[in-house]
Amino acid sequence: MTSEQRTTLDAILRQSAFPPDIDLDEQRAQLRALLSAQPLPTDITVTAGELGGVPTADITVDGVEARHTVLYFHGGVYVMGDAALSADLAAQIARRTGAKAISVDYRLAPEHPYPAAVDDALAAYEGLLNNGTSPADIVFVGESAGGGLIVATMVNARDHGLPLPAAAYAMSPYADLTLAGESMKTKREADPLMNPDALLARIPDYVADRDAALGSISPIFADLSGLPPLVIQAGSHEVLLDDAVRLAREAAAADVEVTLGITPGVPHVFQAYHAVLDEGATALDHAGRLLSAYLSRSAGVPHE
Amino acid sequence: MTSEQRTTLDAILRQSAFPPDIDLDEQRAQLRALLSAQPLPTDITVTAGELGGVPTADITVDGVEARHTVLYFHGGVYVMGDAALSADLAAQIARRTGAKAISVDYRLAPEHPYPAAVDDALAAYEGLLNNGTSPADIVFVGESAGGGLIVATMVNARDHGLPLPAAAYAMSPYADLTLAGESMKTKREADPLMNPDALLARIPDYVADRDAALGSISPIFADLSGLPPLVIQAGSHEVLLDDAVRLAREAAAADVEVTLGITPGVPHVFQAYHAVLDEGATALDHAGRLLSAYLSRSAGVPHE
Repeated sequence: MTSEQRTTLDAILRQSAFPPDIDLDEQRAQLRALLSAQPLPTDITVTAGELGGVPTADITVDGVEARHTVLYFHGGVYVMGDAALSADLAAQIARRTGAKAISVDYRLAPEHPYPAAVDDALAAYEGLLNNGTSPADIVFVGESAGGGLIVATMVNARDHGLPLPAAAYAMSPYADLTLAGESMKTKREADPLMNPDALLARIPDYVADRDAALGSISPIFADLSGLPPLVIQAGSHEVLLDDAVRLAREAAAADVEVTLGITPGVPHVFQAYHAVLDEGATALDHAGRLLSAYLSRSAGVPHE
Repeated sequence: MTSEQRTTLDAILRQSAFPPDIDLDEQRAQLRALLSAQPLPTDITVTAGELGGVPTADITVDGVEARHTVLYFHGGVYVMGDAALSADLAAQIARRTGAKAISVDYRLAPEHPYPAAVDDALAAYEGLLNNGTSPADIVFVGESAGGGLIVATMVNARDHGLPLPAAAYAMSPYADLTLAGESMKTKREADPLMNPDALLARIPDYVADRDAALGSISPIFADLSGLPPLVIQAGSHEVLLDDAVRLAREAAAADVEVTLGITPGVPHVFQAYHAVLDEGATALDHAGRLLSAYLSRSAGVPHE
């Protein structure tokens, strides 16, 4: 944990920050460039797949015996990113849980506004269950918008009477599209990458004519009772810090098992920089141990 | 994790709940009876000690090589409990961190109102440092009022220019004596042991003529910057749930490393029932691993 690593990363990200006034095609290209800057580790294989009619990127790690499945949802404020771009991060969790990862290419706004992403996420999960995968062997993992989406999808699955996965892991969840978190203001200067104006500019693409406070859009407003254990992580240098904290608060109030980890001085989805930031690897290790324990517990003990 | 364990414990605690209308001597006797109900494990030795002029209970575990020191602060809303009554819980953490525990008999209200407890806690810590113990080898641990007191004491130590311990672990911290947490209302029925009326009845004893919102009385209102990593745990069945969540929120906002663990369906300081409640042992194991990692990190790397 050196402050030098954090300072270097902060400077790099400030150059990559999304100005709110560029158009979406440019933003998509910029995110792709940022996430493709590091080559994928050579022991990772990514192949195109499909689950419940939804395209996926299926990710395996050489030497990892896949006894479990990580169902992964990428970030990009519901308008950019894709399943394969998050392959390294998904694989990092697969390594640590003895799993393969299936990263879901849910449809993006504005071409496909809400509820397209939520529908695709549920369809992919149903597809996975229909393939014969036990829910006790599944964990949901998501970053940023994907972190909100996994919670919305568990609520949706519960309401549809589906069994729920063993656990879920949200990295820097984007869980309140009303942007009501205090950290939108208090962390504005500290956040090298995101800011409320840039977020606000893209919200209409996804929310369209619906209410941003809907629980299936902003799951901090959903009834979270009955959800499996949640592992939530965020950095203290992000405007979305309060989304993580409030998601933990609401889940705890609803009698859900929660582990919230806040790492100081690091940015949005800092785990993505695990190769150059010790804190990223440490947070992934911690999440991996917790998820592995939940997978074991889920397999060994019937749901109460 | 059986729901049977949780149900049995809930029923036992409801019989032990503190009615707000009995006098303090009765409450003190009742807490002593509750905490003394289980005999101490035979591998624990408790001897009377002293640190910086403050009496202590010094706790060692047979077979544990004590390379570190747990400085422990008991609970009892600043008016009851004592250092030796928490010996088992302190020893459980000592076991898991390769430490001895020193449990501090800070003065109690109403005989000794604020700032007696805060002064004694700081004096004990200074005494420990003056004995030649490296702060890198110390963790602060506290339950309930003790969980608030360790945070107030780190703030106090920081403001006095003292080096800080490697980490701190608060179980169900009582960190807001203004009782402003939402869970004071929302968890009132679920909490088998504590309720806002009973808490309120004892607050004047400690706060006396001061403001309950003082940061050194209610550390969620203190400036928490510069504090070492905090491990905070609570049960979802307690009116103090929001104290834990808000302490985590304020620490995270101040760039402090935080791990918040919420265990569903269990009461205030559920770790104390580790012998009959799987969740208690699991939470202690988790905290022990985190504290051990912080102790190693603190010893290996100079403070930044």
